[in-house]
Amino acid sequence: MVFDTLQAYQRSIALRAGIDLDLFTAIAEGNHSLSAIAKRIKASEKGTRVLCDYLTMTGFLLKQSGQYSLTPDSAAFRNRQSPAYMGTMANFLMSPTIAGMFEDITGVIRHGGALPSEDGVLEPDHAIWVEFARSMAPLMQVPAREIATVFAGSKPIRVLDISAGHGLYGISFAKQNPNATIVGVDWASVLEVAKANAANAGVADRYSTIPGSAFDVDFGSGYDIILIPNFLHHFDAATNEKLLRKVHAALVPSGIVITPEFIPNEDRISPPRDAMFSMQMLSTPAGDAYTYSELESMFRNAGFASNELRELPPFPQRLVVSQK
Amino acid sequence: MVFDTLQAYQRSIALRAGIDLDLFTAIAEGNHSLSAIAKRIKASEKGTRVLCDYLTMTGFLLKQSGQYSLTPDSAAFRNRQSPAYMGTMANFLMSPTIAGMFEDITGVIRHGGALPSEDGVLEPDHAIWVEFARSMAPLMQVPAREIATVFAGSKPIRVLDISAGHGLYGISFAKQNPNATIVGVDWASVLEVAKANAANAGVADRYSTIPGSAFDVDFGSGYDIILIPNFLHHFDAATNEKLLRKVHAALVPSGIVITPEFIPNEDRISPPRDAMFSMQMLSTPAGDAYTYSELESMFRNAGFASNELRELPPFPQRLVVSQK
Repeated sequence: MVFDTLQAYQRSIALRAGIDLDLFTAIAEGNHSLSAIAKRIKASEKGTRVLCDYLTMTGFLLKQSGQYSLTPDSAAFRNRQSPAYMGTMANFLMSPTIAGMFEDITGVIRHGGALPSEDGVLEPDHAIWVEFARSMAPLMQVPAREIATVFAGSKPIRVLDISAGHGLYGISFAKQNPNATIVGVDWASVLEVAKANAANAGVADRYSTIPGSAFDVDFGSGYDIILIPNFLHHFDAATNEKLLRKVHAALVPSGIVITPEFIPNEDRISPPRDAMFSMQMLSTPAGDAYTYSELESMFRNAGFASNELRELPPFPQRLVVSQK
Repeated sequence: MVFDTLQAYQRSIALRAGIDLDLFTAIAEGNHSLSAIAKRIKASEKGTRVLCDYLTMTGFLLKQSGQYSLTPDSAAFRNRQSPAYMGTMANFLMSPTIAGMFEDITGVIRHGGALPSEDGVLEPDHAIWVEFARSMAPLMQVPAREIATVFAGSKPIRVLDISAGHGLYGISFAKQNPNATIVGVDWASVLEVAKANAANAGVADRYSTIPGSAFDVDFGSGYDIILIPNFLHHFDAATNEKLLRKVHAALVPSGIVITPEFIPNEDRISPPRDAMFSMQMLSTPAGDAYTYSELESMFRNAGFASNELRELPPFPQRLVVSQK
């Protein structure tokens, strides 16, 4: 097992190579023999053979009588022609910036977090967040729609989307509720991606933006719903409470905050995807994958009257829903 | 699954961090609470918590009521005080040289192998092979002993160990058979490790060496057994056949060659550990994880009369045994 785990990094690299070479698209187009696939992806037969076999062993392809085909998952998510294509995720999850956060993980563990650095991902206008907005959007489409289905209603509402990124959370509210107006907050460069997505969704006339740091900009007030997707995990509790007090002030009296997050159970070892996220966050200066009790305490300290943890199956993330 | 696979590299990095910080040794010494473990490994409690939880989720630790303990495997192999300690493996398997071979894996797949480079692992006296000899020895002890038990006999024999590395394969023959004399071939710097291991095993008086490239040096002749452990996978078939003709000439008429290797089945997708090794070898200019039929053909072309594939359970590798 130690051997397999010490080589697990090759699984990430091989999948990324398959995506980069458009191997899955090539097979979806009807290329099943090694020679046909190799020709289509413009690679050597030997390299194609090794990659296809490796991706078969790791569960992304099927091999029978020397012919390769796609698993149902690969057909849906890794064929570039599929509407649910998610191959772009590799651009963010395995970017030099994100993977580079693990370069001195031993030092980070000793210290309890990364030392703040001038090219850290929390610095103003860091380019990684444009990559995030572009790459991770396909993964967020379904959960964003699910949340809007539950919470958007049909009355006129004002929605603030903090750390909007691709903007899909807010945009889903605009799509679901024709009387909703959305304000996205993020770095100016990131908001260009959100605005393009809003235009594509046909809701640009109800989508406006506030560029800058969520900690510094003036949110305005009178919001019915404030979304804080995947943002609090970057900061320590005191910093989050400061932000949440500002969020509290920007809500109408009946307003709610919806916070999609990686939320491990109190044992911190389940569910694995949420709990493992703490390793990624350790490589920020003070972030964490917070348990519900930790998040609940932050919201309570910031003045929120009540909080609730909601599941979002089958999506791995969960929501905290907080009442002003 | 794509999400998990794109982050699988973190599994490798986290295990390496646990080994580097001697976390497993700390727990073996009786430290089970977060504060005691953190103090012992001189790390922050937060970093220790994240690492311990991550290693629990990936199967290397147990967690109960907030206390951590070792799995039986971790107690045997990852506690530095255990005689079967294998933590050093990380130094080789995750060395910048080995992991660095994947930096341009997409280019390597296109090309069908790495372009020869001046700092490639096949260059004379490359330092990685000293690291290999030092780091991988613990993993090889059991299979080396098993092979010697089967093949060493008790008659006077001369054994040639090609690409001796740590020397354990040849040394096991010397330990098993007091009438065996061993000659190890490898780079001079690597043979220093083998000689030290021979001295530790009390067989230095029957262990001699030939420093240099196996392709260039004079083996001498009259060997009863020639070992070629994990060497052929670095080269193409023609290069291997050239070496095997030289090996054939160095054997006595009744001599045999024993070749421990990663040998995938003909389907090239099983067993996974052998078959996955082809990805590692793709990052050499012309190496591969060869199937038995490919190896059999190389030996036959080099003049060997017969070959046999032997399993070596529970060790993942297999043997080709070839009769002159």
